[in-house]
Amino acid sequence: MMPTLGRSPFPLAIITDFGYRDHYVGAMKGVIASIAPDAPLIDITHGIPAQSIIAGAIALRESWRYFPQRTVFLAVVDPGVGTARAPIAIETCAGARFVGPDNGLLWLAANQAAIKRIVKLTSPGHRLTNVSATFHGRDIFAPAAAYLWRGTPISALGPALDANSVAQLDLPVPVDSAIALRGEIIYVDGFGNLVSNIDRQTVEQFASRFRHKSLSVRIKRGAAIRLLETYGDAPKSAPLATFGSFGLLEVALRDGNAAAHFGAGPGTSVSLFAAARRP
Amino acid sequence: MMPTLGRSPFPLAIITDFGYRDHYVGAMKGVIASIAPDAPLIDITHGIPAQSIIAGAIALRESWRYFPQRTVFLAVVDPGVGTARAPIAIETCAGARFVGPDNGLLWLAANQAAIKRIVKLTSPGHRLTNVSATFHGRDIFAPAAAYLWRGTPISALGPALDANSVAQLDLPVPVDSAIALRGEIIYVDGFGNLVSNIDRQTVEQFASRFRHKSLSVRIKRGAAIRLLETYGDAPKSAPLATFGSFGLLEVALRDGNAAAHFGAGPGTSVSLFAAARRP
Amino acid sequence: MMPTLGRSPFPLAIITDFGYRDHYVGAMKGVIASIAPDAPLIDITHGIPAQSIIAGAIALRESWRYFPQRTVFLAVVDPGVGTARAPIAIETCAGARFVGPDNGLLWLAANQAAIKRIVKLTSPGHRLTNVSATFHGRDIFAPAAAYLWRGTPISALGPALDANSVAQLDLPVPVDSAIALRGEIIYVDGFGNLVSNIDRQTVEQFASRFRHKSLSVRIKRGAAIRLLETYGDAPKSAPLATFGSFGLLEVALRDGNAAAHFGAGPGTSVSLFAAARRP
Repeated sequence: MMPTLGRSPFPLAIITDFGYRDHYVGAMKGVIASIAPDAPLIDITHGIPAQSIIAGAIALRESWRYFPQRTVFLAVVDPGVGTARAPIAIETCAGARFVGPDNGLLWLAANQAAIKRIVKLTSPGHRLTNVSATFHGRDIFAPAAAYLWRGTPISALGPALDANSVAQLDLPVPVDSAIALRGEIIYVDGFGNLVSNIDRQTVEQFASRFRHKSLSVRIKRGAAIRLLETYGDAPKSAPLATFGSFGLLEVALRDGNAAAHFGAGPGTSVSLFAAARRP
Repeated sequence: MMPTLGRSPFPLAIITDFGYRDHYVGAMKGVIASIAPDAPLIDITHGIPAQSIIAGAIALRESWRYFPQRTVFLAVVDPGVGTARAPIAIETCAGARFVGPDNGLLWLAANQAAIKRIVKLTSPGHRLTNVSATFHGRDIFAPAAAYLWRGTPISALGPALDANSVAQLDLPVPVDSAIALRGEIIYVDGFGNLVSNIDRQTVEQFASRFRHKSLSVRIKRGAAIRLLETYGDAPKSAPLATFGSFGLLEVALRDGNAAAHFGAGPGTSVSLFAAARRP
Repeated sequence: MMPTLGRSPFPLAIITDFGYRDHYVGAMKGVIASIAPDAPLIDITHGIPAQSIIAGAIALRESWRYFPQRTVFLAVVDPGVGTARAPIAIETCAGARFVGPDNGLLWLAANQAAIKRIVKLTSPGHRLTNVSATFHGRDIFAPAAAYLWRGTPISALGPALDANSVAQLDLPVPVDSAIALRGEIIYVDGFGNLVSNIDRQTVEQFASRFRHKSLSVRIKRGAAIRLLETYGDAPKSAPLATFGSFGLLEVALRDGNAAAHFGAGPGTSVSLFAAARRP
C-alpha cells in the first residue's frame, strides 16, 4: 500500500524562531536539499517567540513523539549564536535524533526520548565551508541534520559530550500545599490558551484527598474557574479550566482569548483548589 | 518525464486556523508521516482567522479544484472540538476527499465537487489511541486523512451519514432589485481586497438590461467605484472594482489596502448599479 | 545512501508576498502538484512585505545559492499583475532557473547566477486555460515553473527576450568619501536587524588606509557603534555592527530589535568611519 522502495521513510522536522518574513528558513532548507535531496522536510513551526528557548523547548517536547521513530529534529532558537555555546546533536533510545544549540532547547524532548549519546558538532566536513558568525542554523545545524538523515553516524559529526556537561532546562514544579496546588503558566498558544505546569497525575493525587468536593482554578487572585472536560462544556465567552492537548491543566476562554482576558502570560501564577461541590 | 514508480502522485493538503506560532500543525504532520510516510504534504494555509468556519470554507472552495484529482484535504477550523459535533470524511464524484469537523467547513468545496458519500469517523483503529478533548486535528482528523491517502476505503472509517444530516453552510445570495445588485463582502484577503458574493454571471445578466450604461460599485453608501479589468487599470492609490481570482466581484485599492481604506469587512454591503456611460 | 531512482533530486522553491492568511500559496501548489506531482516544494518565504519588489529581490539573492544546482525558483511579488509587464523565465549558467514577473524581482539573483537565456511566458499550452487578470502566480507562473521542473525546455515557454530589454534592479552603492563609507539600510529582517549595502570587501579596502584606528558605525547622526565579530560579543541590550549572514554590514541590538531602537528602516543612512583605537 505504501511503496517506499528503499527511500528512508522518516522526515527531517524543523522548528525555529526565524519567523515567516525572511528567507532564513528557505536558506536552511536549500542547504538540506543539497545534502539530502530525498529528505521529506516538515515544518513544526517557525513562530516560536524570538529567542524564547523555553517556548521552543516546550513545543519540541509536545511534538516529537507524534513523529516516526527515526525522525531527525532540527531546532534553532539561538540567542547565543557566535558565542562559546556549542552546537550539538543528540541520539536517543526512542530513536529520535535532535540537532541544535547547547542552550537547553533540546533538553525536555531529548530527556523524554531518553538520551543515548551527545556529540559536539565540530567536524569540518559536515558543515558549510564558510561559517558565518550569525547564522549557524544554515551553516552548521542544517548540514549536520541533513547528514544524520542520510545515515552519517552521529560519532562522525564530532566528539562525545557528557550529558552532565550540556545545558539543562527544567520547568518549574507545582507545589502541593495542604489546601491548593500552586503552579504557573509556562506556555501561551496562538489562541490565547494558558498552559500551566500542573499535570493530570498531580491533580488526581491532590483530588484524592478531597473526594466530596469539586475542583476549581484561579489565575492570580481571580475568581474561581471550573474544571471541565473540554472547551465546549463552558458557556459562550466563559472561562474554563481543562486538560488540553499537552496533558497539562490549561485555562481557556470559550470562543475567546484567555491570555488577553486575564492579562496573563508565562510566569503568571495558577492555583487549583477544592471547594464544596455545587448542588 | 515524471518518474512516479508506483508512488501515489496526489498530495495530502492541509488547511487550518492553527496559526504559525505553535507546534500544532507540526504534531498533525508527525501523525500523518507516521501513518503515510510517503504522502506529499501541502499547506494550503494555517492562517484562517481563528474559529472562522466561513473563511475556511471559502478558502477551501477556492483552492480544491487546482489540486490533482484524488487529493485528500484535511481541514480543521473547529470551535466545537470536544462537543457533540461529529468528525466526518466526504468522498466526491470529482475525486477529491475531505476530512474535518461537521460544522459546515467542508460544505462549499464538497458540494462543488459533488458529494458521493459521507461517513462519521468512529473507527477506533483509525485514530490515535488516546484522544484528547481539545485537539481532534491531531488525534482524529490527521489519522483519518492519512489512512484515506494510503488507500483505506472511506467505509472503513465509520458509518455512512446522510447528506441532509450534516451541517450545511450557505453563503448569502445577492439580490437583484430593478436598479441594482445588492450583495455583501464575504471574504477579506491579506492584501485587504474585499471579495463580495456577486459572481460574474449574475453581473452579466444584470448588465444586459443596461446596454448603454457603464457599471459602478458602491461600498456601503460610498462614492461610485469603477468596474475595471484589473488592479493595474486604476490610477495609483485609487479604488477599483474587478473580478478577482475567486471569479467574484471584488473591491481593491491600487497598491493599497481596501479593507482599511473603506473600514469594511465580512458583512459590509456592496451594490452594483448602472450609470450613464462616461464620455 | 540516497536512493533517488531517477527522481529529479532538485526542488521547486517558492517565494512570494502572498502572506500566510489566504489560500493563494495553496492554490499555486495545487497547480504545480497537478503538473509536476513529484516536485519537492520548498517555501523560501511568503512573508515578503506586500508589493516590495526590492525586499523580494534581496531575499531571493540571499537564498538561491544554497539550493541544489538545477532548482527552479518561482518568485511572485507582482504589484503590476494584469498590466503590460511581461511574465518571464530565466535560465542561468549556474544552473538555477527563475520564473516570475518582469519587474526587477529576479534581477539580483539571476545576475549573480549569470543569465544565459530569458523568455517571455506566452505559450498557451504552459499556462492554465483560463487566466485571471489578478492572479498570474496561479495561472501563469506556477504552471511555467512546474513545466520547467519536469524538463520542458525553456524555449518551449515563449520567445527569447534580450537581457537589456527586461527590468533591472540595482541596489544603491556605498560612497567612499575620504573619511567615511556612506551607505544605507536596504533590508530589515524579522528580528529587527538592519542590513546595509556595505560589503566586507569595501570595508576592508577602506580600513586599509586607517591601520592604527578602529572602525565604528553610525545610524543617521547617532552615537558610534562598535564593529564586532558577532552578536554575542556585545553587552546585553547594547547595539553593535557586524558582518551578518548576507556578508553585508548590519546593525543589531544584542537580544533586541535594532529597527525599533533606532527608528530605522530601508533608506536610513549608515556610515562607517575610523576612530583612534581605544586603549
